[in-house]
Amino acid sequence: MNRRDFFKGGSLAFLGTTLLSPFDSIAAITDAKLNGKGKIAKNIIFLVSDGMSTGTLNMANLMLSKKTGKSSSWISLYEQNKVVRALMDTASASSLVTDSAAASSSWGGGIRVPNGAINVNADGTENTPILQKFKRAGKSVGVVTTVTATHATPAGFSIASKKRSDEPGIAVKYLEIGMDVVMGGGLEHFSPLLRKDKQDLFAVAANKGYTVVNDRKSLMAQDGPKALLGIFNEGALPYSLDRASDSTLIEKMPTLAEMTRQAIKTLSKNKKGFVLQVEAGKVDWAAHANDVGGLLYDQIALDEAIAAVIAFAEKDNDTLVVITTDHGNANPGLFYGPQADANFERIFNFKKTNNWILDGVNKDTSVTAFIEKVEAAQGYAISKEEAGQVLMHYGKLDEKGLYNPRNLPYKDLALLQTKYTSVGWGSMDHSGDYVELAMFGPGSELLKPFVKNTDLHNLMLAATGVLA
Amino acid sequence: MNRRDFFKGGSLAFLGTTLLSPFDSIAAITDAKLNGKGKIAKNIIFLVSDGMSTGTLNMANLMLSKKTGKSSSWISLYEQNKVVRALMDTASASSLVTDSAAASSSWGGGIRVPNGAINVNADGTENTPILQKFKRAGKSVGVVTTVTATHATPAGFSIASKKRSDEPGIAVKYLEIGMDVVMGGGLEHFSPLLRKDKQDLFAVAANKGYTVVNDRKSLMAQDGPKALLGIFNEGALPYSLDRASDSTLIEKMPTLAEMTRQAIKTLSKNKKGFVLQVEAGKVDWAAHANDVGGLLYDQIALDEAIAAVIAFAEKDNDTLVVITTDHGNANPGLFYGPQADANFERIFNFKKTNNWILDGVNKDTSVTAFIEKVEAAQGYAISKEEAGQVLMHYGKLDEKGLYNPRNLPYKDLALLQTKYTSVGWGSMDHSGDYVELAMFGPGSELLKPFVKNTDLHNLMLAATGVLA
Repeated sequence: MNRRDFFKGGSLAFLGTTLLSPFDSIAAITDAKLNGKGKIAKNIIFLVSDGMSTGTLNMANLMLSKKTGKSSSWISLYEQNKVVRALMDTASASSLVTDSAAASSSWGGGIRVPNGAINVNADGTENTPILQKFKRAGKSVGVVTTVTATHATPAGFSIASKKRSDEPGIAVKYLEIGMDVVMGGGLEHFSPLLRKDKQDLFAVAANKGYTVVNDRKSLMAQDGPKALLGIFNEGALPYSLDRASDSTLIEKMPTLAEMTRQAIKTLSKNKKGFVLQVEAGKVDWAAHANDVGGLLYDQIALDEAIAAVIAFAEKDNDTLVVITTDHGNANPGLFYGPQADANFERIFNFKKTNNWILDGVNKDTSVTAFIEKVEAAQGYAISKEEAGQVLMHYGKLDEKGLYNPRNLPYKDLALLQTKYTSVGWGSMDHSGDYVELAMFGPGSELLKPFVKNTDLHNLMLAATGVLA
Repeated sequence: MNRRDFFKGGSLAFLGTTLLSPFDSIAAITDAKLNGKGKIAKNIIFLVSDGMSTGTLNMANLMLSKKTGKSSSWISLYEQNKVVRALMDTASASSLVTDSAAASSSWGGGIRVPNGAINVNADGTENTPILQKFKRAGKSVGVVTTVTATHATPAGFSIASKKRSDEPGIAVKYLEIGMDVVMGGGLEHFSPLLRKDKQDLFAVAANKGYTVVNDRKSLMAQDGPKALLGIFNEGALPYSLDRASDSTLIEKMPTLAEMTRQAIKTLSKNKKGFVLQVEAGKVDWAAHANDVGGLLYDQIALDEAIAAVIAFAEKDNDTLVVITTDHGNANPGLFYGPQADANFERIFNFKKTNNWILDGVNKDTSVTAFIEKVEAAQGYAISKEEAGQVLMHYGKLDEKGLYNPRNLPYKDLALLQTKYTSVGWGSMDHSGDYVELAMFGPGSELLKPFVKNTDLHNLMLAATGVLA
């Protein structure tokens, strides 16, 4: 008897009380009201806006509503009363404030691990990642992201690694466990020309039956191959805002929604169902850089992926959709002032991110050239003093740091920018805020109004009737 | 036929479709699932943590959970699945970022007004405040706050005033409309010794049958008088943290929970029901001052009021409880770092707020004395440079500003404090964030997952079956 037969005609209440009672959170689930038949979900699509504080969700919706007259897909789901919502506690084993590795591990492994680790506990033992559990249950599994495909958030669903920084090792593990779809950036972890060990993971993948693509056109030409490895850039993909104004990038780089649709095409061919994680990873990077254009336009790129996913799920009727973030970051907000609305509307016409501005500057850039660059990119004229404040950092650039290897003066530009946008930032790092979580489709009735990140692991297993 | 008879045996769905369809938000309510019988609420208690960003709710719960092993009452309601939640859009007529006057007017009058106004539109017309509607329907009405009783948030439920700053006029209006309970600070707006016009509003109130109290002991001696005016301080009441370590203040000043319980005693004697607004007004003031001790301990004082209200509502079974905030403020957060947890725990042992520290300093205070004062108040030793940075402002103090009349160097102290607490701030003003909203009891089933602040006006009328 396979698992789906086992649960035929059964209910999740039964499942909760009899089989999974060792899990506290599953036992609690039986209290929740069941949605009619307690239908088992066949598929799960789990969307993550990495490092999304409340203000990020809010400002993206304010911008979309004012620009287009329509709410974001995320907020529309609330307005149409189509989802169940919760607040989620995002702590890790080592701190009230998690990093992305521990956060994704909480969902992926069901157990909180120390910051920096992926499904590896403080004592060195490993927790089985949820995509491996689903793979064993016969489902297809995949990850799609705008940062490196081997970054902490996709990895936390997929593999165990003592260090999140071992991305070359994570790439090898992805192919070993037979992930059905892997898409994002991180050419340096797959290409023989860029890997230290010279391994050609694209060739390894091709031998295993993967279709390998490295640009948007090749991706869009696919009609659901057996397995799909799409690596489109060295490092992360560009910010959505920078891509939108650059025809070379538009040609080469797929959007998050495009990758998501193509992933679903491949994964949904499996009659036993699939589980896919979709990450807007650069929302987090933009928050680390206090880069408001990077932040809001990448949040909107995620929103387009949400629209694509909901369109699929509404037809399919067998898919649990989870929409959330792994932790707050920087707690940005649109702040009060006589010019708040007019300032905020400046962002609607941004052409480039702060990152694009700062990365295109060097120690020889003149004050006048910098002022012109900012005005062309974002539509406002900063003063000579303000420009000087930013440029003075270019003498001392080095090459360290996880999110800012060139040590660009993100903070200085953000600080002066607040005057022009009315957007302020509480930090350049993650917050311990409880975060927004929404679920759509079968299984969403299991969600309680306040959950720990680890509860989602058990909920996904219960919703699909897959035993751990 | 009175209103309650009218709806006997009826349902709110009927109410929504037939009587109130001109209101969009009410028409939409009929989509919502009705909680069994669609029972009409007799009472409403509306609790406001003024200016509460997500991080404020979150950090208060983290602190309580770590200190006491128990969640806050607010979060407990979620954990026990006892409430319906929503995100609320808090904009005003004049901006995406509201002030407290326009915010409370949205709830109180059902129509967005420009910032600064209380239930007065841009064209000078006035909207009828909800407590006047409920009063006309035969219910008792009241307001309780930790700031001046005539402040924007209580006023927005009660009266119309072109300017929120006309607190002496607002005090007169309260008595004219026959508010049944008024409690908070603001002696200067009621006492003949402090009012410019020398009117004795305490005498006016007594003549109208109010029991007047001016200290905690007199308040606690009451057993539900006919009408109650309790004014306990000039200006706002002290911060909860400062009160807790000062026996004089403990004796004179009631807590928010104590005022709330006494208000309910008076109001609940009316068989036709009551509507009460309870405001933790200094959560907002603390956010304006980036004062973490003021913020979190006043949030906890609100939480104790929530516990008192829920205890009443669970027995009473006829009370809709609304728990929310009018807007975010300063978007504080506990931010990532190796010492984040240990730093945050410092706040658990704070004895005094930043406001207490800074208000007790003058231009003659020495660096050493200031360092000692901070250490005694909050348990960490700042450097001489840090102390000097704060003290340099005392030469240039003036007496202006709504929230900081002495122009104290709140920002400087907050900036240096982040190193010791790991709590950061995005601004010293309101944010446009969507905010947390929870409802308990009859009528809560009408709440949709995403609402505008004005929707609450119509929802309160629909929940109680009171026609506008």
